[in-house]
Amino acid sequence: MLSKAVVKYIKSLQVKKYRNQHQAFVVEGAKSVLELLQSDFQLQHLFVTEDFLREHTAMLVKGYRYEVVKEEELVKAGSFASNNAALAVASMRQLPPLQVRPTDLVIALDDIRDPGNLGTIIRIADWYGIKNVVCSENCADFYNPKVISSTMGSFTRTNVYYINLPNWLQQHTGKYKIYGAALNGENLHRMQLKPEGIVVLGNEANGIRPNVADQVNQLIKIPAFGGAESLNVATATAIIIDNFMRNS
Amino acid sequence: MLSKAVVKYIKSLQVKKYRNQHQAFVVEGAKSVLELLQSDFQLQHLFVTEDFLREHTAMLVKGYRYEVVKEEELVKAGSFASNNAALAVASMRQLPPLQVRPTDLVIALDDIRDPGNLGTIIRIADWYGIKNVVCSENCADFYNPKVISSTMGSFTRTNVYYINLPNWLQQHTGKYKIYGAALNGENLHRMQLKPEGIVVLGNEANGIRPNVADQVNQLIKIPAFGGAESLNVATATAIIIDNFMRNS
Repeated sequence: MLSKAVVKYIKSLQVKKYRNQHQAFVVEGAKSVLELLQSDFQLQHLFVTEDFLREHTAMLVKGYRYEVVKEEELVKAGSFASNNAALAVASMRQLPPLQVRPTDLVIALDDIRDPGNLGTIIRIADWYGIKNVVCSENCADFYNPKVISSTMGSFTRTNVYYINLPNWLQQHTGKYKIYGAALNGENLHRMQLKPEGIVVLGNEANGIRPNVADQVNQLIKIPAFGGAESLNVATATAIIIDNFMRNS
Repeated sequence: MLSKAVVKYIKSLQVKKYRNQHQAFVVEGAKSVLELLQSDFQLQHLFVTEDFLREHTAMLVKGYRYEVVKEEELVKAGSFASNNAALAVASMRQLPPLQVRPTDLVIALDDIRDPGNLGTIIRIADWYGIKNVVCSENCADFYNPKVISSTMGSFTRTNVYYINLPNWLQQHTGKYKIYGAALNGENLHRMQLKPEGIVVLGNEANGIRPNVADQVNQLIKIPAFGGAESLNVATATAIIIDNFMRNS
């Protein structure tokens, strides 16, 4: 059974302040927990249902300490409306220093506040083999439970850095091509793109902030054929990155 | 002020059974309500905040009957965590009979149950000028408030049909190319695609059901370059449709 103290601890990790204080975060659901177990993140707690244990005994005999609990307990402690599998608490990890080679493709996010969008973008980055995502400091927190869960395990393979975006871009102009998504950009379908450079995506409502846009040297747009005025930022990221990757 | 009876009526429309009974649905937020006012949907109720009224007087003098209410009232009646703009109740509309020309591109959804995904796909369809989306009967309901809100107004321009998908596809084999998204499909980036035919997307966890897959005559996949095992179904739809549209 989950003790009151543990439930309280897990609940506290829904708040960024306490995540940072404890340097820990929560991972929920079968897929995400399984990916966590195969990653280099260090485990603090692992709670599993009997069903999950039965299905993944091979994985759990590896030596993880775990506790069998009821479905209701996972729901009570976590943020999911239902969870018949597992919940883990892991320690945050130290990222290697951010280094970008001129042949890398990097996603840079300016003021992306919706956790679901950030998580989906991390999953897209992982699908296309993009290792580094850089975020302006006002983006959603990587360790937010909604970010973690919407990456569907890709949080274990993608390095997400929080930086002063205008300054960081300024340091990279010249050596790197900096693309920015904008409705007045060049039509992606008509460009010869290589999977190299930095692609900046801005806040859905407000676009890229002027001091970030100043560092962009090529505006790009996804051509529209219908009536919608915009696309969700995660959708736009997927389409743009796919266009970069088609010649790789 | 919103009367108790009206709040109860609006609340009841969060449930499909009552939406169907009253043939009505709820639209929330500035963008969606503004799109509704410009569409041919018939309005039953319109509640606006003073701020919204001030910003959109030109639109509201057109003759809509509206009532000015407080932000808290909109939140109380609706499904949004915050809403400083507007909430409307509109009547469902009769769709024209579904007719597909061989030169059309149609999105067909098999068992897409997440309302946010369905809404995002409708928005993508609208961006690319795709008029018709066909859904298997177990897909999320078009008039679900989460579907409506995640279309960001595109619900006014896209016709979504609920049909027996295997039967409907069977009626269209021969005359129409039927594509299906699958991990063992042909690499989209290496195909010469025209924006014609029917593109089937399946349930994220289970893929396309066998009796639907039987009707598909070309499997397609988005090439993967990294570690993620799958993409969100709305993300996948966006990338696939973009690949179809690049030669149009």
